[in-house]
Amino acid sequence: MTKPNSPIGVFDSGVGGLTVLKQLIRFLPNENFIYLGDTARVPYGNKSPETIKRYSREATHFLLEKNVKMIVIACNTVSSLAIDEVRKVAGIIDVVGMIDFSAVAAYRSSRNKKIGIIGTRATINSKGYEQQLKFIAQNSPLEIKSASCPLFVPLVEELQIDTEATKLIAYEYLEQFKDFGADTLILGCTHYPALKKVINELLPDVDLIDTGEQSAIQVLRILAEKQILNNSQIDFSTTPRIEFYLTDFSYSFTQLAELLLGFPIQNPKLIEFSS
Amino acid sequence: MTKPNSPIGVFDSGVGGLTVLKQLIRFLPNENFIYLGDTARVPYGNKSPETIKRYSREATHFLLEKNVKMIVIACNTVSSLAIDEVRKVAGIIDVVGMIDFSAVAAYRSSRNKKIGIIGTRATINSKGYEQQLKFIAQNSPLEIKSASCPLFVPLVEELQIDTEATKLIAYEYLEQFKDFGADTLILGCTHYPALKKVINELLPDVDLIDTGEQSAIQVLRILAEKQILNNSQIDFSTTPRIEFYLTDFSYSFTQLAELLLGFPIQNPKLIEFSS
Repeated sequence: MTKPNSPIGVFDSGVGGLTVLKQLIRFLPNENFIYLGDTARVPYGNKSPETIKRYSREATHFLLEKNVKMIVIACNTVSSLAIDEVRKVAGIIDVVGMIDFSAVAAYRSSRNKKIGIIGTRATINSKGYEQQLKFIAQNSPLEIKSASCPLFVPLVEELQIDTEATKLIAYEYLEQFKDFGADTLILGCTHYPALKKVINELLPDVDLIDTGEQSAIQVLRILAEKQILNNSQIDFSTTPRIEFYLTDFSYSFTQLAELLLGFPIQNPKLIEFSS
Repeated sequence: MTKPNSPIGVFDSGVGGLTVLKQLIRFLPNENFIYLGDTARVPYGNKSPETIKRYSREATHFLLEKNVKMIVIACNTVSSLAIDEVRKVAGIIDVVGMIDFSAVAAYRSSRNKKIGIIGTRATINSKGYEQQLKFIAQNSPLEIKSASCPLFVPLVEELQIDTEATKLIAYEYLEQFKDFGADTLILGCTHYPALKKVINELLPDVDLIDTGEQSAIQVLRILAEKQILNNSQIDFSTTPRIEFYLTDFSYSFTQLAELLLGFPIQNPKLIEFSS
């Protein structure tokens, strides 16, 4: 039974989804959240679509057992490859992914209709954003440039946020968007908002689309329309109510989580999937 | 009669409210908007509360005649001094101001509960944000530092966005917040988001609260809960549907409006209030 005070389930293959959770908390400060990070099997990006679908089904079942009122797929790879699978398992529970609304936001934000997309190799190869943008544009003018930035995730996970090395690598990845003339860039990976400052410095006149932010706006809209926003009294003095479930405690997890989420994670619980 | 496709009315004493409109468009891309800028009588900040209330009543009547489904007071001075007056005239039409939700967002965003507020002299003197923050905190620890930044509005209006002079003046205004140890700063004037970059450079570790963004979230929430979001088909290829009404065409208006809004204003109409 879906109730206003039921939690929102947020699912990622690892910790990147914490940047999405951060945006969700910003827009929905009085909701309860359950965050599931499949840290034992991360990264999904280099696994087969069948395996990714199976993992996503498991995660969906886990969240449904927690009586979530909505599922947010805080992962671009799962959003590209397994959102239909998650929806099938979720039934009447709404599922929000990373791609559709961010593509709309990018298209609307762009004035010259030259849009850049960056992401992991898996996301860029899936062409999820590209297809969605072309669908939106129909026959109107639109130019797209995509680039995978494979070192960005490991750099973030090693907490190299604005080191000289990160700046050099970012320059290597991003200079092409200047030449291309993009006025809008989709950060098509949940780790990338951690690098906003460096990306902004290199592309100061480009609007950065934070897919977590766009999804959070959509979650707010859906819950409000369905009248299942949590309207119980907010206690402003408490920290957000989030339960964290992880399949592994990785090295440097605590520090990384705080960087991505903006505050320390309390009492994460270790769980195990059968496979 | 309030209908989903009725416009949202946005009212400001001048052009600063365009940064609020920008946020509204971002969160509500398929709404119709009416923007009223009382550019002939700007600035309100140095006028008496009685005069500000009278001007606000006139603006409210104008918007109600346009059959708006909601009124956004995109002005901190009016929000501090005349929101009750606007509500009285607006009747059953919801009125969203700048202060309440931004105070909540700032309080929640702050981890050390040391919050800074900047605004015009009128806004800072009205203590609107300060009172709201204290009301939220109740007896929990909270330290507030407020500062008026009287040159920020004229600098923005002269398009001095990131000049050396603006940086020097910003340093003079903002250095005290570093010493104070604020981790969150409320941009309590609708012009200030135009200076985000400079402010960010001076206070890189401080969260900036954009009052337009917070109000836009609230507008989305209210319209969705009341089931009066505009759900007509979005045509992605068109620019947002906004009617602009101004009481004066000021010098450099076009350029300034584009800076604050992010795109050029189409066909503003000149109107006149009786007084």
